[in-house]
Amino acid sequence: MIIDLISDTVTKPTPGMLQAMMHAQVGDDVFRMDPTVNALQEKVAALFGMEDALFFPSGTMANQAAIKIHTQPGDLLFCDKYAHVYNYESGGAAFHSGVTCKLIDGSRGMFTAAQLAEVTSGNPEIYLPFAKLVCIENTTNKGGGACWDFRELEKIQQITKDRNLSFHLDGARLFNALVAKNETPQQYGQLFDTISICFSKGLGAPIGSMLLGSKEHIHKALRIRKLYGGGMRQVGFLAAACDYALDHHVERLAADHQKAKEIGAVLETVSCVTKVEPIETNIVIFYVDKSMGDANFIQQMKDQNILLTPMGDGKIRIVTHLDYTDEMHAVLLNALQKF
Amino acid sequence: MIIDLISDTVTKPTPGMLQAMMHAQVGDDVFRMDPTVNALQEKVAALFGMEDALFFPSGTMANQAAIKIHTQPGDLLFCDKYAHVYNYESGGAAFHSGVTCKLIDGSRGMFTAAQLAEVTSGNPEIYLPFAKLVCIENTTNKGGGACWDFRELEKIQQITKDRNLSFHLDGARLFNALVAKNETPQQYGQLFDTISICFSKGLGAPIGSMLLGSKEHIHKALRIRKLYGGGMRQVGFLAAACDYALDHHVERLAADHQKAKEIGAVLETVSCVTKVEPIETNIVIFYVDKSMGDANFIQQMKDQNILLTPMGDGKIRIVTHLDYTDEMHAVLLNALQKF
Amino acid sequence: MIIDLISDTVTKPTPGMLQAMMHAQVGDDVFRMDPTVNALQEKVAALFGMEDALFFPSGTMANQAAIKIHTQPGDLLFCDKYAHVYNYESGGAAFHSGVTCKLIDGSRGMFTAAQLAEVTSGNPEIYLPFAKLVCIENTTNKGGGACWDFRELEKIQQITKDRNLSFHLDGARLFNALVAKNETPQQYGQLFDTISICFSKGLGAPIGSMLLGSKEHIHKALRIRKLYGGGMRQVGFLAAACDYALDHHVERLAADHQKAKEIGAVLETVSCVTKVEPIETNIVIFYVDKSMGDANFIQQMKDQNILLTPMGDGKIRIVTHLDYTDEMHAVLLNALQKF
Amino acid sequence: MIIDLISDTVTKPTPGMLQAMMHAQVGDDVFRMDPTVNALQEKVAALFGMEDALFFPSGTMANQAAIKIHTQPGDLLFCDKYAHVYNYESGGAAFHSGVTCKLIDGSRGMFTAAQLAEVTSGNPEIYLPFAKLVCIENTTNKGGGACWDFRELEKIQQITKDRNLSFHLDGARLFNALVAKNETPQQYGQLFDTISICFSKGLGAPIGSMLLGSKEHIHKALRIRKLYGGGMRQVGFLAAACDYALDHHVERLAADHQKAKEIGAVLETVSCVTKVEPIETNIVIFYVDKSMGDANFIQQMKDQNILLTPMGDGKIRIVTHLDYTDEMHAVLLNALQKF
Repeated sequence: MIIDLISDTVTKPTPGMLQAMMHAQVGDDVFRMDPTVNALQEKVAALFGMEDALFFPSGTMANQAAIKIHTQPGDLLFCDKYAHVYNYESGGAAFHSGVTCKLIDGSRGMFTAAQLAEVTSGNPEIYLPFAKLVCIENTTNKGGGACWDFRELEKIQQITKDRNLSFHLDGARLFNALVAKNETPQQYGQLFDTISICFSKGLGAPIGSMLLGSKEHIHKALRIRKLYGGGMRQVGFLAAACDYALDHHVERLAADHQKAKEIGAVLETVSCVTKVEPIETNIVIFYVDKSMGDANFIQQMKDQNILLTPMGDGKIRIVTHLDYTDEMHAVLLNALQKF
Repeated sequence: MIIDLISDTVTKPTPGMLQAMMHAQVGDDVFRMDPTVNALQEKVAALFGMEDALFFPSGTMANQAAIKIHTQPGDLLFCDKYAHVYNYESGGAAFHSGVTCKLIDGSRGMFTAAQLAEVTSGNPEIYLPFAKLVCIENTTNKGGGACWDFRELEKIQQITKDRNLSFHLDGARLFNALVAKNETPQQYGQLFDTISICFSKGLGAPIGSMLLGSKEHIHKALRIRKLYGGGMRQVGFLAAACDYALDHHVERLAADHQKAKEIGAVLETVSCVTKVEPIETNIVIFYVDKSMGDANFIQQMKDQNILLTPMGDGKIRIVTHLDYTDEMHAVLLNALQKF
Repeated sequence: MIIDLISDTVTKPTPGMLQAMMHAQVGDDVFRMDPTVNALQEKVAALFGMEDALFFPSGTMANQAAIKIHTQPGDLLFCDKYAHVYNYESGGAAFHSGVTCKLIDGSRGMFTAAQLAEVTSGNPEIYLPFAKLVCIENTTNKGGGACWDFRELEKIQQITKDRNLSFHLDGARLFNALVAKNETPQQYGQLFDTISICFSKGLGAPIGSMLLGSKEHIHKALRIRKLYGGGMRQVGFLAAACDYALDHHVERLAADHQKAKEIGAVLETVSCVTKVEPIETNIVIFYVDKSMGDANFIQQMKDQNILLTPMGDGKIRIVTHLDYTDEMHAVLLNALQKF
Repeated sequence: MIIDLISDTVTKPTPGMLQAMMHAQVGDDVFRMDPTVNALQEKVAALFGMEDALFFPSGTMANQAAIKIHTQPGDLLFCDKYAHVYNYESGGAAFHSGVTCKLIDGSRGMFTAAQLAEVTSGNPEIYLPFAKLVCIENTTNKGGGACWDFRELEKIQQITKDRNLSFHLDGARLFNALVAKNETPQQYGQLFDTISICFSKGLGAPIGSMLLGSKEHIHKALRIRKLYGGGMRQVGFLAAACDYALDHHVERLAADHQKAKEIGAVLETVSCVTKVEPIETNIVIFYVDKSMGDANFIQQMKDQNILLTPMGDGKIRIVTHLDYTDEMHAVLLNALQKF
């Protein structure tokens, strides 16, 4: 038994999801004739109270399409220094959109309205990149699954409105935040110009993300998706899995969060662990001391078929998910206690 | 019964293909842990005698990745005026790669070695885009499914070598050409630096293309695919369908070609049809006279649940495929004879 | 004595122009504090009846700024197959703006309204580059200094209005056309959204071009010029030369045209010359037969200190200009007659 | 009498410089036929002990050409958070080159070798921008004219070599550093792959920058300059001024530095001034308290015809230069003492 805690992207479809896939009605989505994708797009748009939605093969493509939609080459994007769009999308903002990133020095991937107000206070000058877009990520991946405070997001939205900036949410793990904070998709739909969500992380679908926004934004996104090579044919097989995930795998994220907290509690008792970051959702980030070393720690776990992710500088990441069973959980806790 | 002859992309998986998908072993392909994709990539690379291969969500992304790999911004790409990479990829060569296209005035989408030699004969000057890449498409989509002469391709390859140009094949319908001309993948693997093939056209898979090349090219392609947002997770479901298609749907392309020829023979007898382009594979392009008009012709067919594609200026396209049955064929021929 | 007929860009300032330069009032143009540049921009805008104007270090930068202003990445630009923006600006439209060029097969660098109507008649589709901009060049460089028919330009403008396309004039040699056709700058100012003009060709200034357009266009151009690195400091030295050129070197272009026609008349009598293109302004393009060969012809002239430009395929170009004196003219005609 | 201390770019040519301009030998630099530019390029390359050099219309274009030469779209550039290439070039790194900037949190615009080592220590992954280029600026503009420690630069060079990174110097005010630190151009020529220098700041020429590097780099730069629209014609007028500046205006920078220090000494005694940054060259940055306010301070000086630059948050900048005379200096010191 391999206990893979590297990411919540490694899950495989449940039997029910597989059945949903295999019975999907499909059509050619390049001609917008796939009924399953079309229905899913309408369903998710309605869920968030937004006008329209579009399926994407990856969250990276959905985010990069949003950046393209909101900006012109030479523009400036504000995000936290931990933001996925800056750190883990291969430099796509500059590559695709000619956009410069201005990083805000937030806490656990989250900045405050006051911080945003400060960096966006200058006047436009021809020698500056033009301020155009604010991106936030909820939950924050590099920030250890931290959830933004909704009141702070409302204040941030107000700044974006006052200063004529677009506002995009990278919601790769938004459902984790919704479950953890007992919030609703509609609340988020009212805050942002565009939102990307992902079905292949905590929700457990094999492939699929979605971009939500106004009809005008999604109309532009359709063309950008084609340009990026994301126009696919009988997409209904994938959409059916996403639809199943939405119906069956949202509430259960609480169980992943609970396990993460239990792992954290054990880690607090491990002598070589110097710090455990606050655990709000399904991501655990902790630090081991130098006498142990992160590479050594990870190797010792790997020898027991437990896979973790090194994050540099003594930092290690654990991600719980749908395929991480109670049985595995017991094995892991036991292994950690032995340190 | 709808007889959809708009494109060979509209096919749905056969029961056997669906079974193959359902039983696929999958993993997270972003971490390159999906055994079905990995096996398919090796299999196809071996089939063409090329070093490596990479799965893509679309042929457009595979082609645009190839253009990116071979060029720098400011470079020049040579292709036929009918080329898919110029006409139907949303201006991607300029958008992604900053590349200018030099169109060659070929016949039915195919130019000669002599034509290429002429346009590539100049010296590099700083005020010119730099000649870097030659792309050909086989079969030619806009050229009516025409197949390149292999001897001419060998001469073209020689020019690309002499002038230090890269050579890419857009093989969206290459298997149609191989079957029609009784050629082999290995022959093509020896001619080109990179080849894109598509599983979701004549081969009948729901989604999937592949880029073939040297290990170095595919290593670069992996990063470009990530940048474009084509890194997906449990891709094995799609790859299993492509694998099945490769095993079961190549030889049967001959049947599509035969039906296309029979349609052409009937069209030759229709009074309002002024010309039928030569039919080599599964695409039929014909012209109707002005008293009929293409829109009118297409509407009359649509009234009989037969869907065709207008191509402008009295030109109409029919594409035969896996889901176009003998029964549908009889209905179509009968409908055409009634004109 | 070297007789340099390679281009009208090789001229050196006259004594009067040099005096104007050396007495120029200057300031820091990055802060828009250079009085000479500011005055020239206002003067030229008024001359064309356009709202505003901006000085550029080159015509290439002015043209590429115009393309950037009018387009988004992924857009389509229509121009003649001979257009300078396509052929001689290093692939800048794709490089800077991600724009694809659709070439029209005109005559001597000039297409008709009917030709433009045909290529712009399709509907926008997500798989096509988006039609956005029409560029024309007057006079046409590669077309041998040919001048567009003003009535045809009016018809072309109407098409751009009907189809919501921007309309840019590359007027590198526009003053040659104005003099040759007895037209006015105001006429052109009413036809185009933006116009670039050049002071360092026929007008004889050492450096300088200008972009004209609406206040909004020029406001955008200011930023684009900064991005391209065209923001310079004490520009008044250059602007003073351009201002002098405008006052003293426009009418005299007629003399260059007259000399070009006389050269053409002699060339018609030279046995190895197979064809002389119609001569409308200061460019002469002619062809020599194969027994002579263009390289040989050019070398024989070079041996007599007369410099001409080869254009490939037996084609040779001569450009008359301010520094091509009556004495040189006599020498050249004599040399040609000896062939 | 206006005392303009906004920038050292506002200077006007001295009579000697103007004479040099007026007597310059010129030619068409697009054809590389301008003897004055050619000689200056050779002279400066020799001065720095580098292979080749190329004249540019601005320092921004020279820097952006260097970034283009060293990178591919999707690459990562390391620089200080104060760097001119990040802050004041309109987002050009992303716009022209698709390059992402990784900012290092240095002191007064200067980071340490240890800081660079840390941010460049990771492995390349396909989801990261690729580390490719390190840029430093000497003196630092936003850092108040601070000069890098040469030993630290040598250590930084070693890291760039070890990690296969290119190394570019934005030397807009390098001559100020050379004079202040008693260093030589040759020392710098040995450290960097490319260096940009500027003649229109402290050196007092109206227009002109230069990029230095290997023959291969400058060969590429020639094409990039053409693409950016920096190919100009009779450039010798500008080059003559730069040449004169190099011969006559380098040593005298010490006088600007001396005046800056004297200004700083007076500022230290002004009650509303809370802090004066260390003064190493010709830039003085100081802070005024809130009861005064920077806007108010600047306005009071402006009322006396003394122009200063606000830098936000109570920060004010003074730049001394060639046109800032002893007489003006006495007036300024007197005005400051009155506060």
